[in-house]
Amino acid sequence: MNKHISEQFDEELQSARTLMMEMGGLLEQQLKNAHEALLSQNAEKALSVIEVEKQVNALEKELDDQCIQIIARRQPAASDLRMMIAVLRATTDLERIGDEAKRIAKLSLQSGSHPFPDDRFADIDSLMDRVQVMVARSLDAFARSDVDNALATIELDAEVDRQYRTVMERLLRDMREKPEALELWMNMTWVTRALERIGDHAKNISEYVVYLASGEDVRHTRTNNT
Amino acid sequence: MNKHISEQFDEELQSARTLMMEMGGLLEQQLKNAHEALLSQNAEKALSVIEVEKQVNALEKELDDQCIQIIARRQPAASDLRMMIAVLRATTDLERIGDEAKRIAKLSLQSGSHPFPDDRFADIDSLMDRVQVMVARSLDAFARSDVDNALATIELDAEVDRQYRTVMERLLRDMREKPEALELWMNMTWVTRALERIGDHAKNISEYVVYLASGEDVRHTRTNNT
Repeated sequence: MNKHISEQFDEELQSARTLMMEMGGLLEQQLKNAHEALLSQNAEKALSVIEVEKQVNALEKELDDQCIQIIARRQPAASDLRMMIAVLRATTDLERIGDEAKRIAKLSLQSGSHPFPDDRFADIDSLMDRVQVMVARSLDAFARSDVDNALATIELDAEVDRQYRTVMERLLRDMREKPEALELWMNMTWVTRALERIGDHAKNISEYVVYLASGEDVRHTRTNNT
Repeated sequence: MNKHISEQFDEELQSARTLMMEMGGLLEQQLKNAHEALLSQNAEKALSVIEVEKQVNALEKELDDQCIQIIARRQPAASDLRMMIAVLRATTDLERIGDEAKRIAKLSLQSGSHPFPDDRFADIDSLMDRVQVMVARSLDAFARSDVDNALATIELDAEVDRQYRTVMERLLRDMREKPEALELWMNMTWVTRALERIGDHAKNISEYVVYLASGEDVRHTRTNNT
């Protein structure tokens, strides 16, 4: 491969990564808005999250096309190819994070009839903070190919899972003790589940960083939670 | 590209598709066993599903490596490249179906203390049948590049979603009317959710078939359910 083509490839690869970061930024905003929609019962924010989800999907398609065209045209060497595939995969995870943000926004619109109890609220608030940190760090780690940060983000997921189980147990207790607000507990259960999934996707993105740097596939080497 | 290289590529592509179908067959068996584990409270079947999940993960890695190596070595034209990417994506969906099968197997082990009510059981039984049909058809459609079958499978997902919502409403009613069996209702809720997700993955696999045949990306063109 001559220098000229290699430079063009680098530029295109950079452009795909930049677009991916743009998509990541949009999703961080979506999570922030979904968080506000839920915690301050802000229907306007919720509707905005649902509306912006279309942009997220459009960005996913654009990135997909860009990556496939780059691979087809530049015929990259194996290591560059792995980077392109990692971008493709991370894009899928980002799009799924967008689905979960939309789900949370929709659930926030359904929770209007019952007042949120303060303590369960604090639980979900804290879990939301954590997964937002995970998403931000996984994107940083990807942008800088920062394996240490990626590994630290993967570790964070274990904490999210622990917290998820605690919140779920509390919600089960709430259902038993205050069955009159069952719909609310179920809604909060779905929100909690969505947050746990967002953590999983951030973990996936971090795992691609480790994989790219080390050639080692860390998926499935850790025990999965249910 | 000369004929010799092109033939080698075709062989390798065929081998990757064959391995994908093998993985698909293993997952159909996993779903069948998870179904039996749940419906006949067969702990042995459940443990086998959990054990075999490791094979599923190993197959995913193998397929991943095969696809990436083929792309790197053969530098396929855009249309063949799209096929390889579709195999990579379908592999991810298959692996996620495996995760859900394992989840159902684990949940079946936790449901031992309460007898399953016949009517809710019939609900889940029927939903399980449907998603198993969806998975089988999506794999058939992929193997034969059968767009009609893929489109029909995509349509089936709407029925699964409808049925999912009906079962969820019934479970909510069960929770309200028979709160003493709350854990059972929650377990069944998770099983129902897992089944809905399996339907989504089968739909994804079908969408890749349509995409490959038409060049049209049908993802996101339909409304998502929550």
